[in-house]
Amino acid sequence: MTNMADMSKDVLVALERDLTRDFELQKSNRLALDLTRGKPAPEQLALSDGMADVLAGDFFAADGTDTRNYGGLRGLPEARALGAELLETPVENVICHGNSSLTLMYIVTATALNKGLWGDKRRWNLTSPVKVLTPVPGFDRHFTLCQSFGIEMVNVPMTDSGPDMREANRLAAEDDSIKGIWCVPKYANPTGIIYSDECVNELARLPATAAADDFVVFWDNAYAVHDFQFPRAPLAPMATLATDAGTADQIVMFASTSKITYAGGGLGFLAASTKVLDVLEKQMRVFSICPDKVNQLRHARFLKGRLEDHMAQHAALVKPKFELVEQTLRDGLEELDIARWTSPAGGYFVSLDTRPGLAKSIEQLAGETGLALTPAGTPFPSGRDPEDRNLRIAPTFAHTEDLSVAMSVMVLCIKLATVRQQLGPSS
Amino acid sequence: MTNMADMSKDVLVALERDLTRDFELQKSNRLALDLTRGKPAPEQLALSDGMADVLAGDFFAADGTDTRNYGGLRGLPEARALGAELLETPVENVICHGNSSLTLMYIVTATALNKGLWGDKRRWNLTSPVKVLTPVPGFDRHFTLCQSFGIEMVNVPMTDSGPDMREANRLAAEDDSIKGIWCVPKYANPTGIIYSDECVNELARLPATAAADDFVVFWDNAYAVHDFQFPRAPLAPMATLATDAGTADQIVMFASTSKITYAGGGLGFLAASTKVLDVLEKQMRVFSICPDKVNQLRHARFLKGRLEDHMAQHAALVKPKFELVEQTLRDGLEELDIARWTSPAGGYFVSLDTRPGLAKSIEQLAGETGLALTPAGTPFPSGRDPEDRNLRIAPTFAHTEDLSVAMSVMVLCIKLATVRQQLGPSS
Repeated sequence: MTNMADMSKDVLVALERDLTRDFELQKSNRLALDLTRGKPAPEQLALSDGMADVLAGDFFAADGTDTRNYGGLRGLPEARALGAELLETPVENVICHGNSSLTLMYIVTATALNKGLWGDKRRWNLTSPVKVLTPVPGFDRHFTLCQSFGIEMVNVPMTDSGPDMREANRLAAEDDSIKGIWCVPKYANPTGIIYSDECVNELARLPATAAADDFVVFWDNAYAVHDFQFPRAPLAPMATLATDAGTADQIVMFASTSKITYAGGGLGFLAASTKVLDVLEKQMRVFSICPDKVNQLRHARFLKGRLEDHMAQHAALVKPKFELVEQTLRDGLEELDIARWTSPAGGYFVSLDTRPGLAKSIEQLAGETGLALTPAGTPFPSGRDPEDRNLRIAPTFAHTEDLSVAMSVMVLCIKLATVRQQLGPSS
Repeated sequence: MTNMADMSKDVLVALERDLTRDFELQKSNRLALDLTRGKPAPEQLALSDGMADVLAGDFFAADGTDTRNYGGLRGLPEARALGAELLETPVENVICHGNSSLTLMYIVTATALNKGLWGDKRRWNLTSPVKVLTPVPGFDRHFTLCQSFGIEMVNVPMTDSGPDMREANRLAAEDDSIKGIWCVPKYANPTGIIYSDECVNELARLPATAAADDFVVFWDNAYAVHDFQFPRAPLAPMATLATDAGTADQIVMFASTSKITYAGGGLGFLAASTKVLDVLEKQMRVFSICPDKVNQLRHARFLKGRLEDHMAQHAALVKPKFELVEQTLRDGLEELDIARWTSPAGGYFVSLDTRPGLAKSIEQLAGETGLALTPAGTPFPSGRDPEDRNLRIAPTFAHTEDLSVAMSVMVLCIKLATVRQQLGPSS
């Protein structure tokens, strides 16, 4: 096998015939495989089953709080401490509330729009349109959230070291309707890259140079501790850098235990300056009396002092799956030189770029074999990948055997779509 | 002792002197008592501690769902069935989400305002102002919620059988900016009354006769099963009546287990027509991936088939406290005829009316002794009781001994404030 671009027409025709035969064979296998969801596998979930017994009838927090009763809107001190550990920020800057960082992002966005985050006159909805910077490819739920509020998204390209900061700085500096930027700084969804120190530094300074005086960095550190190797890969300390840059009131950080303990049965965390927390707490008091502190105590006791051990157990289950993905892609595609993919050292996703114009057709071919791929375009606002070339792979949930089959089928579909494209419509 | 209104000046002066002496004595006791919060007592919370073991390592719902993983935004079928039991509605009309019915009320209000509940063009914020009917005295958190959205509140008097429906019907029929009504139909907060069958019937028909075509009945059935005696006191079946009246799309019902299992560590329920649920689910999908299904399974397994038994255990703890309140008020105030109070057969509150103009001063006198009463005016929008006469008593949380002392002090303060008022400012 050689680089597909160098293949002669005859070779391509033969290859297309072979691949089509393999593809028809696969269709007859009637697979039912799914690479769409960044879900933990059952074996990962089982790592936290010890949480069920950890309270042992003692429902009282270290400060004497009866976790079974009302009170404590910001969350239990020991649960907030867990968030502080994840987000590398002082515990007094953390709110632990609900089971979802996405919900907290929604609350912050709604508050920024309608009430302002600072208890002064600034709020986004004083002018229209409201825009935010969206590094792409990125996390589809950030985009859906913006869309639901009518917030316009201005794409910024992702690089191997984070968002293209030249572009981000330029856009933010010249357009005061740009009010924020969405970031997944570690093992970014979907590319899996870690923002470089320089990038984090520039993001910490961005609110100071943005034209809008109510610019907010949404720092969704969903995979803060989801490394495959330990000690953990470092991420520049955003909280410290923001304080140094005088922008601490304009950085809001998020994390959760959805992929540490249970997905949906975990804890959501938010970290911000105390000024912002005061405003958010006042807003949250309207619709919430308190979070589920029993679950907070369970988490705090279960993970205290052993977070890294626990994540190492996850890594032992997840890393081989990523290695399998990498191996299958390399074996099937490297020599042909028809795709580029990321090789993350943590997180939940691999991002793969095909030749332009192929992602949707590959998704469709895969679907015909019974393999569900994440809809092409998902990591882009409104689901529109301008080059139609990006595919997101979520390897964690599948059994290894299924993953192996799924990746082989995916490689087959990529090759088939590419060779057909190269042969042209007449073939 | 006789009716205070009939007392001679001399008798009043002597009474004021005695009461003042008792009051000063009480101040020196430096109490630290709190009758403000409708919180379950620790003994009530302990009734649910068996929940911790009920899963016994089996995290799979009856339909095979792994509750530890993502999925199922409307909630686990068996948890929704619990909500259906509380709200007397078919399970397919129930969403079980989050730990708080208040949060669900907020979501419904926000959706009614900004997106509409029906997937058509109707939404409240198309016109301004937006108003709702608020039966008073009522639940302060309903009022705070409205206030946060800028919704104007139009008070309707509460009677012993529910909101004054003549007034509610009249207002809703003549003003199309009135978009809804807040109801706590059983053991209403704070009066403890149960809406009569006729009242529920009229409320079920209200959306059909209201001038607004997007009128919504908020049916907060927070105390649906919180009776002191069993079999439960019946409440007319709102779901059925609404279906019969053709108004099912305009009734949204709420409940939670906050005062069944753990306060904050429980489940929130919402019930509505499937049309409304579809719209709400679409909206909720923006900010939530799924609720905490592990806690849902815990609740469903723990309460299945034994909800009434469980509530009877609560009643055994709560009823004596309400009896103590009733006894102390009757012994201290009945002959003097200076206050009226409710004698609920369930729920969490007793509502007491003093002579007009005294509630705030009684709260203040109590505060001087170290007894915290719920701020006078709390059960009214913006905390303004037009007659300054209503006090809400929350007997559940205190120990019986403390409650006994607290009620004696409250009676003393009521008597002292009343005698001073009757003597006039010159005394």
